[in-house]
Amino acid sequence: MGVTSVSLDLKDPEASIASMARAVSNWGRWGEDDAVGTLNLIDDEARTRAARLVRTGESLSLSLPFDMNGPQRGWRRRTNPVHTMLDTGTDAERGLQGFPHGIGGADDVIAMPLQCSTQWDGLGHIFDHGMAWNGRRAGDVVTSEGDLVTGIEHAAPLITGRGVLLDLGRHLSPATGELDDGYAITPDDLDACIAAQGPTSEIGTGDIVLVRTGQLARAKREGWGEYAGGPAPGLSFTTAPWLRARDIAAIATDTWGFEVRPNEFENAFQPLHQVVIPHLGLTIGEMWDLDALADSCAASSRYEFLLTAAPLRITGAVGSPVNPIALL
Amino acid sequence: MGVTSVSLDLKDPEASIASMARAVSNWGRWGEDDAVGTLNLIDDEARTRAARLVRTGESLSLSLPFDMNGPQRGWRRRTNPVHTMLDTGTDAERGLQGFPHGIGGADDVIAMPLQCSTQWDGLGHIFDHGMAWNGRRAGDVVTSEGDLVTGIEHAAPLITGRGVLLDLGRHLSPATGELDDGYAITPDDLDACIAAQGPTSEIGTGDIVLVRTGQLARAKREGWGEYAGGPAPGLSFTTAPWLRARDIAAIATDTWGFEVRPNEFENAFQPLHQVVIPHLGLTIGEMWDLDALADSCAASSRYEFLLTAAPLRITGAVGSPVNPIALL
Amino acid sequence: MGVTSVSLDLKDPEASIASMARAVSNWGRWGEDDAVGTLNLIDDEARTRAARLVRTGESLSLSLPFDMNGPQRGWRRRTNPVHTMLDTGTDAERGLQGFPHGIGGADDVIAMPLQCSTQWDGLGHIFDHGMAWNGRRAGDVVTSEGDLVTGIEHAAPLITGRGVLLDLGRHLSPATGELDDGYAITPDDLDACIAAQGPTSEIGTGDIVLVRTGQLARAKREGWGEYAGGPAPGLSFTTAPWLRARDIAAIATDTWGFEVRPNEFENAFQPLHQVVIPHLGLTIGEMWDLDALADSCAASSRYEFLLTAAPLRITGAVGSPVNPIALL
Amino acid sequence: MGVTSVSLDLKDPEASIASMARAVSNWGRWGEDDAVGTLNLIDDEARTRAARLVRTGESLSLSLPFDMNGPQRGWRRRTNPVHTMLDTGTDAERGLQGFPHGIGGADDVIAMPLQCSTQWDGLGHIFDHGMAWNGRRAGDVVTSEGDLVTGIEHAAPLITGRGVLLDLGRHLSPATGELDDGYAITPDDLDACIAAQGPTSEIGTGDIVLVRTGQLARAKREGWGEYAGGPAPGLSFTTAPWLRARDIAAIATDTWGFEVRPNEFENAFQPLHQVVIPHLGLTIGEMWDLDALADSCAASSRYEFLLTAAPLRITGAVGSPVNPIALL
Repeated sequence: MGVTSVSLDLKDPEASIASMARAVSNWGRWGEDDAVGTLNLIDDEARTRAARLVRTGESLSLSLPFDMNGPQRGWRRRTNPVHTMLDTGTDAERGLQGFPHGIGGADDVIAMPLQCSTQWDGLGHIFDHGMAWNGRRAGDVVTSEGDLVTGIEHAAPLITGRGVLLDLGRHLSPATGELDDGYAITPDDLDACIAAQGPTSEIGTGDIVLVRTGQLARAKREGWGEYAGGPAPGLSFTTAPWLRARDIAAIATDTWGFEVRPNEFENAFQPLHQVVIPHLGLTIGEMWDLDALADSCAASSRYEFLLTAAPLRITGAVGSPVNPIALL
Repeated sequence: MGVTSVSLDLKDPEASIASMARAVSNWGRWGEDDAVGTLNLIDDEARTRAARLVRTGESLSLSLPFDMNGPQRGWRRRTNPVHTMLDTGTDAERGLQGFPHGIGGADDVIAMPLQCSTQWDGLGHIFDHGMAWNGRRAGDVVTSEGDLVTGIEHAAPLITGRGVLLDLGRHLSPATGELDDGYAITPDDLDACIAAQGPTSEIGTGDIVLVRTGQLARAKREGWGEYAGGPAPGLSFTTAPWLRARDIAAIATDTWGFEVRPNEFENAFQPLHQVVIPHLGLTIGEMWDLDALADSCAASSRYEFLLTAAPLRITGAVGSPVNPIALL
Repeated sequence: MGVTSVSLDLKDPEASIASMARAVSNWGRWGEDDAVGTLNLIDDEARTRAARLVRTGESLSLSLPFDMNGPQRGWRRRTNPVHTMLDTGTDAERGLQGFPHGIGGADDVIAMPLQCSTQWDGLGHIFDHGMAWNGRRAGDVVTSEGDLVTGIEHAAPLITGRGVLLDLGRHLSPATGELDDGYAITPDDLDACIAAQGPTSEIGTGDIVLVRTGQLARAKREGWGEYAGGPAPGLSFTTAPWLRARDIAAIATDTWGFEVRPNEFENAFQPLHQVVIPHLGLTIGEMWDLDALADSCAASSRYEFLLTAAPLRITGAVGSPVNPIALL
Repeated sequence: MGVTSVSLDLKDPEASIASMARAVSNWGRWGEDDAVGTLNLIDDEARTRAARLVRTGESLSLSLPFDMNGPQRGWRRRTNPVHTMLDTGTDAERGLQGFPHGIGGADDVIAMPLQCSTQWDGLGHIFDHGMAWNGRRAGDVVTSEGDLVTGIEHAAPLITGRGVLLDLGRHLSPATGELDDGYAITPDDLDACIAAQGPTSEIGTGDIVLVRTGQLARAKREGWGEYAGGPAPGLSFTTAPWLRARDIAAIATDTWGFEVRPNEFENAFQPLHQVVIPHLGLTIGEMWDLDALADSCAASSRYEFLLTAAPLRITGAVGSPVNPIALL
């Protein structure tokens, strides 16, 4: 693919997005009925190889806690998860539950945005000029009844494969391990990080790439502040061809919004999303906690592992909370 | 362990439960602060061996869909999941969202009981006479603020290991593959099934055992009916010593309630739960869809695989929805 | 108004609805910015007169209970209300809450469809061929962010005035007080009921009319069954001109859906709604419990009272739960 | 009643609360089964007189909007209301809903704490040393299934009667109409306000007293800030005997927490609540918007009106959102 020359005019995001979209589009690549985009790139053989990467058996959850102490502050009605009890141990102990032979129970419910914490963005999450993944009209895909075509349920069995950590935080800021807010990670940064980390971080077809910026480590230390939507390090708009050329299956970051914020264009909002979700068909993870994984990878100098990051099988969802498991 | 002689009086569940609890108790086994029970039995070495079981790379989701077509009928305020949209493609296509440069988005929320569909029961889910796992008072563990001690978040990284399918449905009912409602699976049934299936279904320390009854296949064909709480095949109360002796890490079934229903005692409610959750410290999965897995295992005559069944990391939850992934 | 001659073709609901809509339309009557329709017809003078109707000071709630025992069965994701506790007395009594000087508390949350039980339909609830009240395009009015124009909050202070009970159940079925399911109440039935009940049930401008069919009494006795959407007595499609001619402000019934079900046309769904909400601008109440009120009115032979039925002031809602208070 | 001499030790809230509780207790006054406390003091005769107060027919909603722009910030899992759509006008206009003859619809759901905005506190909301209203053990009253004894549903028909506005903001701060945060309203302040406002604000048995501090006007102007739980003007702990002596039925304020904050005792939390809810049996309203009412009362020099403030009839709720209607 020779997709490196795309026009970028920082004052004209719309033209740049259109140009980039044409350059990297995967529309039609997996047939007109496709519902999973680049997740097609993980095949059984890739999963078999990924399983063989397991060395120590160390299992790490890459999920943040889901509770009221999360980063959400109400933007677009996104709250932190509200978890309440239907039955409690206190009631059981006091003998209030009316069950026989001394059995008691506790039960619970949750109300939450599907993108309130560690999550996958589904392919129905972002549109470009009213068009969704694979060239469909957005209104034919996601109505108030949910995503009728590319709902996250289609990805339910698919997101297990080779995970690779690119620890840009440590690579670019060895002293702190954290990139500054507003830092735009470029294709050259990605390549240099891979070179520095060594061959276990080479990226190939069907890989699930985890990009650590270190911003989450800072938020855990200093408080959420503007983590949900404010300034953040993240991928530059210019990485779209890099993502396309390597044919990765999915990507996730330790930030709220995957791409650098403020966005690189003037008066813009998440332009890289606008390219990679509807045009590339790329599944994006956000708010993943990569810190323990990064410590482990740094200690072993191995950056590849079996990653199982199964979304909940919610019919018609445009995103899903997830508890990604790295098996090292 | 010689825990096979426990007194059973079908008219006296309370005494039988007490006797069985004493016989199989794991209280104190992993220290007084333990929060995960038999999940301790999966260690890094076990996970490494489990990863080596992968042969074909076939990945199967063992989850039911999460939507309004689920089995819940309101018992104890358990509803099916209510999934609603915060933003839609219809709105985006019509230009109603107010974002710049043609980007549009869809977002969603969910309200659901944590045990409405494919799930794990956490250790705070069931109590015996006001006592919770490891000998704690239930009211010290699960208040209206959630499970303060044994919340499902402690299990977040742990539930990945060797899965073994015991297809009791096919074994006992070869013609239909489905056990009758009310059929109580005995220890002898389990042993005979293992023997018939062959060495890949031998059960050992730290395994995650999946028991298929076939009831879910029937429900998918005929409608939910009384699936949520009504008559069902399931484990006999007498299997508790078998589960304890094999030191399994976790177990899951394709039924609403894991154990046979109606329960074997008169005037009883889930007596096996009352033994194995608070006394054995066993994590139980329910409403798992094992049908595709069973087809695959039957075809290959291999019943073991890498299972990753990561609960959402919901702080203080006594259960969690899960999308279990079997990697064969 | 001479709006009585409208064409009705039971095989052609679409043409009949169009004809009826033209005959009764209030579009433009209260200006192009109007957000409340016929609620404009209750003025301060009408409210003053309504307050003077109070004789005995008897106060009756016309609301059903809001709980899991309600009529909803999941149609279009409508559930019964799920009420859960954030804090409990059990926890407080056990000393688990961490407050000083012995204070304890209980708190709660609810998740519910706004039309799950006793309710008002707002003007954004129903559209006719993509058009909303007062001639607006439906997509300009109700997006996934709610009703941006005619949200129920506009009605917050308005729905207090003269209430009149028309007890069609008692009038037409004196033996049981209950109309049969499928019975269509005609304009003549309404007039005859008024004549029989006497001058306190004369209907005039700005009145809030409560039509009791008795179906709810039957459901309370026999169980909900198909109450939510099944066969029911209710207003005939032909009552639209009657409702328009009397210039009532609002109307409510003791049924799920206000109009007779099955609907009078073949292959139809709520055709009277399609006329009276978007074209007449009429606010409709459903699932009101009129039984105690009917007893009281029958005993006193007075059918008028002060009615205060204030919707919750939920920004952008297309309906609201309500606890209507009749002060007799 | 001579209940004015109660001991107050600002360093010992516990003793002061106990002393005050004894002085003002209503336990047993309405029988041992009572579920509504001082709401008993509004009888039919009082409601009849209240209806006669109506002069102009002006109807005012005293409710704040219920939406994501509300004051909640997550304390004890209290969020602002999350209102989402099940169906939209955009979908209807685009022809996505599948209904016949051109009908379309919009529907919605809400998830909210019952005390997130304009509200009533029910009698099960606050306990004193594990005891609830009328001398019951808190754990016998409010379990995780809700308030089994004094749920808000018992108050459903009762809260309509004579409302009286005491505009302490205007009375004590004529220049701004707003009391400072931290200002404790004393019994003398209440009496002086009544004297200044004149005979229409005399308080008697069964009245519903609305105390305006002006804090909400400030919050509407300057932003919520710490409105939910931070410093605020409010009633002094010493007003409990005043409230008891006048036998009011209910009271509401324009603040988050009714009583002055910070509380007057050291290391205290809502001590007046601890007296007046469980001991007096007083129903308390919070976050009422009294500003338009205050303007109207000031203009007419009449401070009494018919108030209808019907809680939703939610079974077992310890509080309820409410849209209070003042009819002047």
